[in-house]
Amino acid sequence: MHAQASGAFAIGLDFGTESVRAVVVDTGSGETRGTAIHRYEHGVIDARLPGSGTPLGAEWALQHPGDWMNGLERATRQAVGESGVDPRAIAGIGIDFTASTVLPTDASGTPLCERKDLAANPHAWPKLWKHHAAQPEADRVNDAASRRAEPWLARYGGRISSEWLLPKAWQVAEEAPEVYDAAAHFIEGADWVTWQLTGVCARNACGAGFKGLWHKREGYPSRAFLSTLDPRLGGLYEERAQGEVVAPGSRLGPLTTEWAGRLGLNPDTPIAAPTIDAHAAVLGSGIAGPGPLFLIMGTSTCHLAMADREVLVPGIAGVVEDGIAPGYYGYEAGQSAVGDIFAWFVTHGVPEAYAEEAKAGSRSLHDLLSERAARLAPGASGLLALDWWNGNRSTLMNADLSGLLVGMRLSTKPEHIYRALVEATAFGTRVIVDAFAANGLPVSGLVAGGGLTQNSHVMQVYADVCGRDLTIAGSPQASALGAAMLGALAAGRGRGGHDTLLDAVNAMTPPPARVYRPHTAYQATYEELYACYRELYDLFGRERAIMKTLKRLRDAAAPLA
Amino acid sequence: MHAQASGAFAIGLDFGTESVRAVVVDTGSGETRGTAIHRYEHGVIDARLPGSGTPLGAEWALQHPGDWMNGLERATRQAVGESGVDPRAIAGIGIDFTASTVLPTDASGTPLCERKDLAANPHAWPKLWKHHAAQPEADRVNDAASRRAEPWLARYGGRISSEWLLPKAWQVAEEAPEVYDAAAHFIEGADWVTWQLTGVCARNACGAGFKGLWHKREGYPSRAFLSTLDPRLGGLYEERAQGEVVAPGSRLGPLTTEWAGRLGLNPDTPIAAPTIDAHAAVLGSGIAGPGPLFLIMGTSTCHLAMADREVLVPGIAGVVEDGIAPGYYGYEAGQSAVGDIFAWFVTHGVPEAYAEEAKAGSRSLHDLLSERAARLAPGASGLLALDWWNGNRSTLMNADLSGLLVGMRLSTKPEHIYRALVEATAFGTRVIVDAFAANGLPVSGLVAGGGLTQNSHVMQVYADVCGRDLTIAGSPQASALGAAMLGALAAGRGRGGHDTLLDAVNAMTPPPARVYRPHTAYQATYEELYACYRELYDLFGRERAIMKTLKRLRDAAAPLA
Repeated sequence: MHAQASGAFAIGLDFGTESVRAVVVDTGSGETRGTAIHRYEHGVIDARLPGSGTPLGAEWALQHPGDWMNGLERATRQAVGESGVDPRAIAGIGIDFTASTVLPTDASGTPLCERKDLAANPHAWPKLWKHHAAQPEADRVNDAASRRAEPWLARYGGRISSEWLLPKAWQVAEEAPEVYDAAAHFIEGADWVTWQLTGVCARNACGAGFKGLWHKREGYPSRAFLSTLDPRLGGLYEERAQGEVVAPGSRLGPLTTEWAGRLGLNPDTPIAAPTIDAHAAVLGSGIAGPGPLFLIMGTSTCHLAMADREVLVPGIAGVVEDGIAPGYYGYEAGQSAVGDIFAWFVTHGVPEAYAEEAKAGSRSLHDLLSERAARLAPGASGLLALDWWNGNRSTLMNADLSGLLVGMRLSTKPEHIYRALVEATAFGTRVIVDAFAANGLPVSGLVAGGGLTQNSHVMQVYADVCGRDLTIAGSPQASALGAAMLGALAAGRGRGGHDTLLDAVNAMTPPPARVYRPHTAYQATYEELYACYRELYDLFGRERAIMKTLKRLRDAAAPLA
Repeated sequence: MHAQASGAFAIGLDFGTESVRAVVVDTGSGETRGTAIHRYEHGVIDARLPGSGTPLGAEWALQHPGDWMNGLERATRQAVGESGVDPRAIAGIGIDFTASTVLPTDASGTPLCERKDLAANPHAWPKLWKHHAAQPEADRVNDAASRRAEPWLARYGGRISSEWLLPKAWQVAEEAPEVYDAAAHFIEGADWVTWQLTGVCARNACGAGFKGLWHKREGYPSRAFLSTLDPRLGGLYEERAQGEVVAPGSRLGPLTTEWAGRLGLNPDTPIAAPTIDAHAAVLGSGIAGPGPLFLIMGTSTCHLAMADREVLVPGIAGVVEDGIAPGYYGYEAGQSAVGDIFAWFVTHGVPEAYAEEAKAGSRSLHDLLSERAARLAPGASGLLALDWWNGNRSTLMNADLSGLLVGMRLSTKPEHIYRALVEATAFGTRVIVDAFAANGLPVSGLVAGGGLTQNSHVMQVYADVCGRDLTIAGSPQASALGAAMLGALAAGRGRGGHDTLLDAVNAMTPPPARVYRPHTAYQATYEELYACYRELYDLFGRERAIMKTLKRLRDAAAPLA
């Protein structure tokens, strides 16, 4: 699989929430020769605007576009310098970015927050992905789209997120019409950065599709629909979101002379169309096409996969042609709480004696509980849980659902519950795997990244519950590596890169860090437990209204005295 | 209700697990004039026999009959002395005792453990109620009775306990045939004590009915059935459990001259037929007949009530004519874990931060959680539980059932769970109340005793959930007081006692310690929550096999590595 060092290199730039990371990767061997991280000077802006000091509301989260470009410059120079690579050997640059991180700019691409007359207006600034203040707008979009049975809604599992471009732009129109009027573009940060580097304003299919409601053949939501939301929104996409939509890794253009100078690179260095950070990690974890399901496991889990056709799988949060790799349909699904449930339990449900034992052993409660839970055979806890502590965002798409635990006895111990919670999230992933398979998109194996992959107990349970190999990606910086692969693709073989993403992925992916194989002896028990899980899943998710009643009574209850 | 001081007094003797208590009570005013407790010298014998040092097996628990009589003598003399009452003013003596605490004696009533040749044999000793080593015999009784559809089985909810006389006697026959052969009587400790005091060997209807399978018209289980268990058991009741069965409070006879001397009382002092301690507490809490349901709330809850007819209510653990008060049918039901569930949660499910806060405030975690839970309105927790941590011993009679908790969110706090667990046990009591009512035995109100009555949050939830007044009995020693009431009944009005138990209870019951009244504003919410509880109850208790499957998988799981 792994070719020899090519003498050519790609840069991957990974724009995260707090910092930007640059890696310099050998396009032949995949070896990472240089890495640099630059923290954003202003970090996440969630209290006051820089300069004016304008206070921000609850749920607000902004970024400073200058941070991106300064960070890009410094991290790139440092990584290239550290690598010892001749800048002329840089074959291409790829970029991944958080999404949907959206900013308004004027026609030339200047962020409106850089205009003196608007700099004190929070709506002129880039809204970071985790800006959640547009929830009312998202709710109204969902209500209206559902009422009108908008055809695109099903591609997003029946509801869109407040994090996406449309609610964020609508919030600007509602709360700061002068900013909305001044905005020639609402654009993803990823696309804005590549625009700065190349002078080409385009939209990456990943961001446009997964966060912008774009479809390769059907385009954006209709002007008619948008106008029913708000007359000002009618032309949002046609007038304020221009730019060709291109697959990640497409060659956008060479570096501008100015940016070639600032980065110390050749002016003809190709820049790839960017992608979303999670989606870049799919590539950086060795997946270039249909088959494996990629899990980014943290507080929640995001599931990404590719297929050669578009199917409306129940529970998908998005399906986008060219959304992950050109030529394939990218699929996204999700579990709304995973690590969050384990953290909830560790914070709220583990007694003092365990805390003291963990402290005495200088380890975390997660480690202590995992060690004890790992010693239990499947079924030994006597427990079964439904992992809906934050609702269900997969096949049931219902935020009113809640958690369930059954089987407690007086002999039940915290490690029994911990294991049941881990198993429940694994069953939740298996439901998604089964939904893909049932719709003609079989899953060949699981590949995992994210913070939870540090927990070998959790990983083994996932392999056992899903009855499939679970591979831990070899790169600790899979997003940045995936971005570098896109850079190598944009470069093409002629420049020392690759002509297909498959070639890039095959050449540049390091060996897995670890592969967890399912214990065959556990399969029969887990089949029975999974059947029980499915029974509870349908019972509480579809047939009985108990969870809904409990939520209604909770919402109606008098506040604390 | 409360008459004036009569100048006549009754002694109540309460034989508990660790000690015997004596009270001297004014039969007119109910005032307790003297109280004394004597701890048994040998306590609970569960490791080695006194004298011989013979080691005991697991689940064994014995007592020393000498402890009872010594304790009786000393506690009586001390209580009478403390009271300042002229011994000639003692109108009668009543007794309650733990049950089923069973001993083998010879024909004269001498305990076999006092025979030199048998003193080193554990089976010659009184088996305390909590001796659980006869579980195999109990299982076989249940299997055989169920197979043969024995008519008495339904009166005990379809299964008998290992604590009762039949399995305990069978264990003797199996493991120590020489003791079994030497036993002229297997007798409840209560009946043995009154035999010693009066020279009359009788059986109290409470012990005989609730623990000995006796029925006023149908008698004991048939010789045919007993013989199928074991040919030696055929004559168990006819030959080794002789003695007229009499209602508690019946006059058995006067004190023997010997015991009159030892106690310093008149030789003609009437001795009442005894009763079981829990059943004495019903009387001592002011209940003399049908209407109220009495709850003894501790680690588990025992429900006792009276009615004027015999009905086979689903979920009853026993129904016995004259079993609590003469002339009425006594009913017993139970929840197998109540305080045990709260203790389980406090031990296993409450985080360090709460433990530290409780310590800082010098109070228990129960107090801290109760205070916080009490501030929540009904429904505010968003949670609902099934209280089956130790199976269900009421209307479902199924030990394979287990606990369930539904409604958890990331915002769920320990006090939410604590409240849900308290509510679940209250719903469990309401199911029993409803089962009585549905069978023509309406419950007028709740009267509670036992350790859990100290927790005002728990008590208020019970009143609210059941929609009924909940009265906390006024006497802190309700069993001993109830025994004194039986003594007053045995004395009769002519001696300064009472001619009916109703009169004795009315005259001698102190005012309630507290009455919890249901909040009318909470009733609608609790109706909805109770409907959900009933839905879960039927779903997991009757319709779905998930809990059974989980138990099977747990039992089949490999042991811990």
